[in-house]
Parts: sequence; structure tokens; C-alpha cells
Amino acid sequence: MILMSDVANKILLIVLDGASDRPVGGKTPLAVASKPNLDRLAYGGINGIMDTVGPGIRPGSDTSHLAILGYDPYKYYTGRGPFEAAGVGIDVKGGDIAFRVNFATVENGAVTDRRAGRISDTDELAKAINENVKVPDVEIIFKRSTGHRAALVLRGKGLSPDITDTDPKKEGLTIKECHATNDTPEAKRTADIVNSISKQVLEVLDKHPINVERKRQSLPPGNAILIRGAGEVPHIPPFSEKYGIRGAVIAAAGLIIGIGKMCGLEYLPVGSMEIEASGTSAIAKIKKAVEALDTYDFVLVNIKGADEAGHDGNFDRKTKFLEEADNAFKGLQNLKDVIIIVTADHSTPVPIKDHSADPVPILMHGPGVRMDDVAHYNDLIAYKGGLHRIRGMDVMPIALDLINKAKKFGA
Amino acid sequence: MILMSDVANKILLIVLDGASDRPVGGKTPLAVASKPNLDRLAYGGINGIMDTVGPGIRPGSDTSHLAILGYDPYKYYTGRGPFEAAGVGIDVKGGDIAFRVNFATVENGAVTDRRAGRISDTDELAKAINENVKVPDVEIIFKRSTGHRAALVLRGKGLSPDITDTDPKKEGLTIKECHATNDTPEAKRTADIVNSISKQVLEVLDKHPINVERKRQSLPPGNAILIRGAGEVPHIPPFSEKYGIRGAVIAAAGLIIGIGKMCGLEYLPVGSMEIEASGTSAIAKIKKAVEALDTYDFVLVNIKGADEAGHDGNFDRKTKFLEEADNAFKGLQNLKDVIIIVTADHSTPVPIKDHSADPVPILMHGPGVRMDDVAHYNDLIAYKGGLHRIRGMDVMPIALDLINKAKKFGA
Repeated sequence: MILMSDVANKILLIVLDGASDRPVGGKTPLAVASKPNLDRLAYGGINGIMDTVGPGIRPGSDTSHLAILGYDPYKYYTGRGPFEAAGVGIDVKGGDIAFRVNFATVENGAVTDRRAGRISDTDELAKAINENVKVPDVEIIFKRSTGHRAALVLRGKGLSPDITDTDPKKEGLTIKECHATNDTPEAKRTADIVNSISKQVLEVLDKHPINVERKRQSLPPGNAILIRGAGEVPHIPPFSEKYGIRGAVIAAAGLIIGIGKMCGLEYLPVGSMEIEASGTSAIAKIKKAVEALDTYDFVLVNIKGADEAGHDGNFDRKTKFLEEADNAFKGLQNLKDVIIIVTADHSTPVPIKDHSADPVPILMHGPGVRMDDVAHYNDLIAYKGGLHRIRGMDVMPIALDLINKAKKFGA
Repeated sequence: MILMSDVANKILLIVLDGASDRPVGGKTPLAVASKPNLDRLAYGGINGIMDTVGPGIRPGSDTSHLAILGYDPYKYYTGRGPFEAAGVGIDVKGGDIAFRVNFATVENGAVTDRRAGRISDTDELAKAINENVKVPDVEIIFKRSTGHRAALVLRGKGLSPDITDTDPKKEGLTIKECHATNDTPEAKRTADIVNSISKQVLEVLDKHPINVERKRQSLPPGNAILIRGAGEVPHIPPFSEKYGIRGAVIAAAGLIIGIGKMCGLEYLPVGSMEIEASGTSAIAKIKKAVEALDTYDFVLVNIKGADEAGHDGNFDRKTKFLEEADNAFKGLQNLKDVIIIVTADHSTPVPIKDHSADPVPILMHGPGVRMDDVAHYNDLIAYKGGLHRIRGMDVMPIALDLINKAKKFGA
């Protein structure tokens, strides 16, 4: 007799950001970490390796998450601007033109500090820009990010991303004029708008009390912005329409929250968010995710700490984080009707301190999954599992099939 | 602590041309050959199988080498002509129209021998063609190859590859008129040029002293050329621009040298080239390659002997060649900062005597590579390795990632 619990109907996708590694002396953090709960999932599931974008393609967290969610990054990734803007919390819409922005210092017409002395108290400056900088028929949305960074979105008809940056890249030069990179009136108009914004911002910010005070203290004022990475926010088919299921995202990193929202996932904040570098946040997130599975068919959880330790080149901290995060997986294997997927979005090898294209280990666990011989969640042995080598774009189709929500192709 | 030797920064790609096979009685030359040095690389590296062009696609050495170098053969392989011309040593340029050519015998207007009695002393005939055959505004480059074969290149503006062959395919017929296969003036003009060349060559060669002498000896004169395989030399982005690294090619086969040059690799001749069918040439080539790694970031070595034994259907000679060539790999595993890749461009199975699409074994060895359980370089067991099944086009992205020269896609 087939019990209801023999058939899965929900998907829990947990991304251990950057957890995968490249061996040094034959070891990786995932290979040496004590992680009984993750290993239990691997033992009871099917395992493999995955190229999130493609073999040898070194992904960002943006392109890899798009791929894992089933959105071809070669189609939907339209540049840094849109994803940065989504990442800082702007509710971008398809067709918006989005940019990355630096606060900078301009003195006597020349950029004297491209980061305005790494200014960080930019809340009021951003507010001043939003209140005072105006362009006819175009909505301007400006939002600060961490440190000297910010994002800018232009919303309106007749705009184009085919324009150049204003960042001179070197100190001592003037802010570059923005130019159209093709002959369309849209590109010409957008370049004019960007130039107008550059000029207006300088007027608004130079006399702003925060900058007056910074100058008094001999600090470089944040009186200008450098605009770059123009991209059109892609028209992404919402998750619920694409797959016919309701999804949510649980993450702390703005970029992942932004991508989740762009794909139509509901963002579920975790009440008492602990610092990302500790395993505690993993426990809170996964607890929240299990609750959310009462309401949603699909929950994406992004756990960030391993990536950060990788970027810092800290093998021991990466290992320790994974051991702490492992506690979050305790008891998950008792979920009755859920396909649990654990993977990484990319490797962030300790010796490289940046993302690499080394394939990530992936496990799938739950009713109906064909168990294999792999008994550890481990980037050095995952290749022996029953999933073989798959791609990020394969995850959602396989998961949907396991919950019997895949559309039949043919009769 | 991360040592410099934990990070690779060079790539040595060794292609054992045609080394892979299809089993007869459960055995292949690679499976039975004693090759301790290759096996040591396999043991210390990661292994897999590879479809150089695609599963079931039976590749030429040209298409497979293009793919392994990361140039999509479906985009860049424009026919036999351009690659033959490059292979015989013509420095072809993007846009050239290139052809394969046979010397043939024409008597009383009919082709009486399509190979001119397999004529081989064609140096002077080629010289006579280059000196005497003229077409306005078009440079004609003619070069002999082995035996009765040669290559022809037309260089100039307003030419097209969309024309028919002149080879009647059967003896007793006249040389075929070359026709345009579309309505463009370029195709029409190029067909006229080819017809003019056919006619001029007959006039120049029929009275040439070599042919006068051949007729005296009752040998078929090489007094005509049959022109076929028209193709436009592709505009191939140079290796250094595509990847940001400097590359070199070490090979004896004209075709491989030609492809290497077309891709912007520098051709490094090996001083005392031994005959290709012995393992000695492998030793000289790999020694040269190791020296070249002081100067170049990437070195492609093509070792030809196994392919020839395969084409001859000689299992024992193929095995023996591989055993001899194995000596060339001695000590390579001590290279500190080099990703060593050993593979084949295709299988040349002894029972088939021609190329087949059976996947080839591939190993990658060096700092940062995830070692797997495979301990032999062997076409029958390579599938068990950590690379699983990749494609030729994956090789360069994976290798570039391992030397940390891959561009990040996203943030």
C-alpha cells in the first residue's frame, strides 16, 4: 500500500552559499567538517555534482541562483545594475533601467576620491537625492547600500540601457559624460537623463549639511555620484506562473532576497536574525523554512557564512561554520512529504578567496528519491552519486518531477 | 598556509591523437598497454570521458581540436578547404576562400586519371602555377601537399565560397564547370575565377618539362587540377584575446599546426623531429613543451602515432606506440604549477580503421584538482572518474578556472 507520506509534495531548497571548495593537501572544509545531520541526508538521499551555470563557468551568486531557480542566466541576467538594485531592496520592475552607484568626492570639477573616503552615513544624502533630483516623465529611485555604494533606478517609457558609465575610473579626472552606445532616441534620451542626474546630484549634495560638516572635519564630502553598470531589469516570468506552485525565499543577503523577489518568491524575514557568520542564523532560517512549508510549496533558503569564510581564505572558520550550520539540519530527514535539496551556488575555495567553477555537491532527499551509495555531503565524493553531473537549470525540473508537478511533454 | 605550489597558473594540454579505441574481446590498446607514467597522472588527478564534439558525433582531427581549444566547430569549421590549406602551411587569413586540390591528368579534354598516377614530385608544378596563373585583383596562393594533393587559396575582396566543385568524380568526363550556388555577384565572380584558374593551369602545366618527361615515360602527366571543398577561412578570435593568455602549439601534423596557427597559437617546431610513428617524437615534443611553459601560459601538444596505428588497424602497434610514448610523461607529475591535461581528439578504433565517436578518456592533474578513485589512463574505466562525461568545449573553461583565469559571470 502506498502511504501519502510516500509521495512528496513540497520542495525545500537549501543553498549553502559558497560551501564547496577546491582541495588543498587533499582536504576541503566540507570533507573534514563533522556534520552528522547533513551526512544523514546524503546517506538517505541521492547525490551528485552540479555545474550551476555550466562546466568551467565561474558564477556569481546572482547568475547561479537564477539558474538553480530555473531561470536561464544567459537570458535573464542583464548586468550588475538590476541585480544590485534588487539587492539593496528596490522593488525593481521589468523594464526599469538600473545602475550601480558610488558616492564620490568632486573638488573643482575633478573626482578626488572615487569612494568619498568610504563614506557610510549616506541615509540623508540618499533622501536628499530622492526628494530633489527630478527628470520629466521619469521616476527616479535611489537607495543607499553598504558603505559608499548605492543603486539608482530609472522607471518610465522610452528608456534604454545602451549607455556608457560616468565613472572616470581614476582620481583626478572629471566625471565622464554619459553617451549612448547606439543611435536610438531612447539611448540618447537616457544618456541625457543620466548626465542631468549627475549634475543635479552635485548641486544637491555639495551644500548638504552632512557634506558641509565633513568638509569642516577635513573629510572628503560625498557630494557626487558615479553611475555605472546600466542594465534593463529583465521581465522574469513569476515563479507561480512558471511552475504552478507558491514559493518563498529566506535569506539575509540583499542580492539573494532581490533575486527571489524578482522571480516572484515571497520574502520571509527571519525575526531575530543573527549575524550571518555564525551557524545560529542557519538554525533560525531553516526553522522558519519548515514553518513556511505549511503555507508554501517551495522554500529557498540561502545560508551565507561559508561563502564569507571562503572569501577570507579561512579554512578553519569555513569548517567551523559548516559544523555549526549542520545543527540546523537536525531532524529535517523526518519531514514526511518534502523533497529536501542541499547544494551550493558555487565554490568559494579557501586558496582562491573568490568564486570558482569547481562543481558543487548536491543532495536530494525525500519520498521517491533513489538512494545511492554516497553517505556524506562532501565535495570530494559527491561525484560518485546517482545524480552524476547535472546543471543548475536541471534542479527545478527534477524537483518538480519528484513532487509530481512536472508538465508532461508529449502524450 | 597556502603555498604558491597549491595554485596552478599554466596549462599543458596533451592530445594523444586517436589513442582511444573500441573494445575487441573486451580489450583496447589503452587498457592493455603498460604505461606507468600516464597511470600515475590519472591516479593523482581527476578523470572522465569526453565527447570532443558531441555524443555520437564522429569528429575529424580538425573539428575536435577546434572544440578542445574552445572554438565551437559548428561555428568555425567552414569546410575542408580552409583547414587543408592551413594544414599544408598556407598562412590563411579570415575571409580567404580556400580549396582542396588534386593534381589530375587531362587528355583530349577528358580527365583520364583523377590523381595523375599518384604523382608526388609536384614542387615545380606548384611553383609554375604560383608564377604564371593570374587573376585580376585576387591573390592566388597554391601549395602542394603530400602525393597528388594540394591546396588553393584565393585572397581578395568580393569573393564567395558558394560555388560548386570542378572534380567530375569519375574518369572519362571533362573537368566540371564551376557554378555559383546562389545569385550573388560574389559567387558568380568566384566561379568565373575558378574556371579561369582551371583553364590557365592546364595551359601552364601541360607543356611543363616535368609533364613532358612523364609523358615520355608513359606516366600520366599532372597537367590539370581538380578543385573542391570551397570554404571561407573563418574569422577566429585569437587565443590570447579570447582567454587573456599566451599559447603555443607543438605538433608534426600539418592540419594541427594549421589549426593552432589559425587560433593564434605560436607554432614551436621540435628541432630533431623523429618519425611520428615512434614514441621518440612524443619525448621530444613533451620536452619542448615543458621548456615552452617558461614562456607560454598554455601549450598544446599533439602526438600522432596512435592514430596512425588505429587507421592501419594494428592493435599491437597502437599498444606499443602508447607504451613508448608513455616514457615522455615521466616526471611530468612533478611540475609544480601546471594543470596537465591528457586526452585524445577522437577514437580511432583498430576494428574500424577510422575515427569513431566513442568518448575519449581525459585526465586533469595539478594543484587544486579534486583527485578521484581512478588510477589508470584507460578508455574502459575513465567513466568512473570525477569529471564524469564532459565535452570538448568544456576543456578550456575548466582549465582556465583551475588556473584562476576564468571570467566571473555575475557578481
